[in-house]
Amino acid sequence: MRSEHSTGDIAKCLRLMLYDKPGHLARVATEIGNQNVRIGDIRLIRSGRTHSTRELVIFVSCEDQLEDVIDALTLLEGVIVEDVFDLVQAIHKGGKIATKSRVDINTISDVRKIYTPGVAAICKDIEQRPELAYQYTAIPNQVAIVTNGTAILGLGDIGAVAGMPVMEGKAALFDRLVGVSGVPILIQNHDPQVIIDTVRNIAPTFGAIKLEDIKAPECFEIEDTLDGELDIPVLHDDQHGTAVVVLASLLNATRFSGLMLRKSVVGVIGLGAAGMGISKLLTSYGVSGLIGTDLDADACKRFESIGGRACSLTDVMRDSHIVIATTGCPQLIKPEMVRKGSVILALSNPNPEIEPELAVESGAAFAADGKSVNNALAFPGLFRGALNIRATRINDKMKIAAAQTIAKCAEENELVPGLLHPEVHQAVTAAVERAGLESGAIKPW
Amino acid sequence: MRSEHSTGDIAKCLRLMLYDKPGHLARVATEIGNQNVRIGDIRLIRSGRTHSTRELVIFVSCEDQLEDVIDALTLLEGVIVEDVFDLVQAIHKGGKIATKSRVDINTISDVRKIYTPGVAAICKDIEQRPELAYQYTAIPNQVAIVTNGTAILGLGDIGAVAGMPVMEGKAALFDRLVGVSGVPILIQNHDPQVIIDTVRNIAPTFGAIKLEDIKAPECFEIEDTLDGELDIPVLHDDQHGTAVVVLASLLNATRFSGLMLRKSVVGVIGLGAAGMGISKLLTSYGVSGLIGTDLDADACKRFESIGGRACSLTDVMRDSHIVIATTGCPQLIKPEMVRKGSVILALSNPNPEIEPELAVESGAAFAADGKSVNNALAFPGLFRGALNIRATRINDKMKIAAAQTIAKCAEENELVPGLLHPEVHQAVTAAVERAGLESGAIKPW
Repeated sequence: MRSEHSTGDIAKCLRLMLYDKPGHLARVATEIGNQNVRIGDIRLIRSGRTHSTRELVIFVSCEDQLEDVIDALTLLEGVIVEDVFDLVQAIHKGGKIATKSRVDINTISDVRKIYTPGVAAICKDIEQRPELAYQYTAIPNQVAIVTNGTAILGLGDIGAVAGMPVMEGKAALFDRLVGVSGVPILIQNHDPQVIIDTVRNIAPTFGAIKLEDIKAPECFEIEDTLDGELDIPVLHDDQHGTAVVVLASLLNATRFSGLMLRKSVVGVIGLGAAGMGISKLLTSYGVSGLIGTDLDADACKRFESIGGRACSLTDVMRDSHIVIATTGCPQLIKPEMVRKGSVILALSNPNPEIEPELAVESGAAFAADGKSVNNALAFPGLFRGALNIRATRINDKMKIAAAQTIAKCAEENELVPGLLHPEVHQAVTAAVERAGLESGAIKPW
Repeated sequence: MRSEHSTGDIAKCLRLMLYDKPGHLARVATEIGNQNVRIGDIRLIRSGRTHSTRELVIFVSCEDQLEDVIDALTLLEGVIVEDVFDLVQAIHKGGKIATKSRVDINTISDVRKIYTPGVAAICKDIEQRPELAYQYTAIPNQVAIVTNGTAILGLGDIGAVAGMPVMEGKAALFDRLVGVSGVPILIQNHDPQVIIDTVRNIAPTFGAIKLEDIKAPECFEIEDTLDGELDIPVLHDDQHGTAVVVLASLLNATRFSGLMLRKSVVGVIGLGAAGMGISKLLTSYGVSGLIGTDLDADACKRFESIGGRACSLTDVMRDSHIVIATTGCPQLIKPEMVRKGSVILALSNPNPEIEPELAVESGAAFAADGKSVNNALAFPGLFRGALNIRATRINDKMKIAAAQTIAKCAEENELVPGLLHPEVHQAVTAAVERAGLESGAIKPW
């Protein structure tokens, strides 16, 4: 019996006890295939006299399909399903980050250096010469990852605590990619002033502030106010991380399709955090023909205040050489709206405003969706570079330098490089450092 | 020439290039000894044809003595002083803590589990069943280490940033001793309400709050308010960590000297954070004869509000079987004040209110100073135990259980065990868990 379910990508792990004889594993694999389910890793856990225990990773589309697989396997002779677990849940057990000591503490002599009495000398040194905090504390390597949980991924206002796995994911990537210490800070409050006050109060602990998954329009006030008040970088990743990766993508996409970005009319559909961040950065990059649309009148007004022209969706699709959509509305862009020869980035996840294949069939010169535009390409190098030069802010020159570097690291015919590309984050870091120093984003010390 | 300086314990490291022939190192060591300076580790760094490079750790009392050593060595033939560095500074370079990923991120498949798209499922799970945050996030293992820098060690109000090395030291010990993630939070503000509001706002990020080096009397208001408002433990370590270790010390000290703690008159000299924490815990333990003294009238009033009797220093010394001093005033207790057969803990660091030897000579049955009473013996197990049972507070029963366990772990004739004693922190954790469960310090889930 073929499965009624489509193939999926939810990873589950089955722990099976199997007859250990030739051909038996093949029978199990065949049965799983019959359920329209792909198989990932297969590991031999234990080899017994007649049976072996194996863990198989399978990719299902829903829980029902998983049940079907288990039912089917249970009917096979010589198969016992010992356990089923979710790999994503398993990797999240106990959380994804921890504060670790960077120093060995093996003897009382070690304790006396890192704690009392030795530590007192370092405290006194910093009291006398505050800039020594850059040498002797973790502060210049710490970035607060601040959320109020109002715009977690595409899930909306699910609360700060439910957003913690995203903040930990960012912190884990910070550590893995550039050695920055990301410190999640959850503030369960909708009032921008509370976020501003709280972040200002704890700011001495950090070398920079990364605002994360805070919804528009509050995100604009929070970022602008903190950026103005604090002498460390404050960056709302949903706006600017995304903008940097979009700019990088456009630098390559226009190359593929023979457009010149600065001279093109760029249409931005959806003027929330991402749409506004993209619009600001494109303006700064030198795009003058910026048009956009949003259902919310205030959003349109904000867009016009930075020099864009608000118009209807139809107008945007008709007049734009390049279209960037960040609306969260699947299939918003109909095939008949696609302008011949245009470039379309339909970025909403998991379902884009128009499928890239359909856009190209309908006449676009080039199209891509959000899967290929991962904003985690930008933030590690942006912050690492800013921290390295003790920047007081992350300005547009630094963001543009990051975008250009990301674009350059892409393989031929790719919009952007892979997230784990070994050199991209170092290259972005170096470019951001240089752009920051050249553009005076530091205060002399 | 013998040095005019006394022997010290500031560790410095000399990197020397030396003639590599028998007896030469002895000559160097002799010259250092002549300067009244002790030698620690000696490491051979590089062996050349005629010269070798070595690093010698020496212990000096001040910078002048270090200069004298360098001058003396420079005069020796075949000795080049290549470099001098401070070991405490060296260990602090770059800070003592970092946020690290607990998960491997080697492939894009890993990224898709810990970050988008996989992480969305975990966020949704937590949104639906908030208690899953205990399973799938770092929150229940994170303790905020909050200071406003007003009472850093014995250094006073040196500011929150200058206090960061102490906070990092606590976090490093948390990691090393019990695997808790300590997260320093620096709030540069003297207003208790600002501290309270800020901590309340970020509290969802943590499993517990550790207040640290915040001066009296503000520390009382801050702790009491937060402890009342939050449903996670809030503990001011300077009060209660110290109190637990003092109680542990007294349990052993009274045993050595044949006193019964509950029936004894206990005199507390200095009613700041530590003095008040000690007084509260001793009262809770069952000590009824509590007298105390402080220069500050408000402090005396607070002491009387918890059932103590305020009187003069002379009265305290005359009437107390047990004296505990935490004043920061060296030599406050004169030999003629010492009551025959009393127990004296003179805890101010680095210079106690009376040297233990002098106290015993003057008639005390037993005396000790602050070096032997390290409050880092208490906080790791107190918090680990409270987090393990998801306690809503750390109550006095838990503190007393911790103190009794610490006392039991001490070697014969020692007041308390060593900080790196392999089992003490596990034992304290287990005792705190049990006391917390028995006394209802949890909310059912």
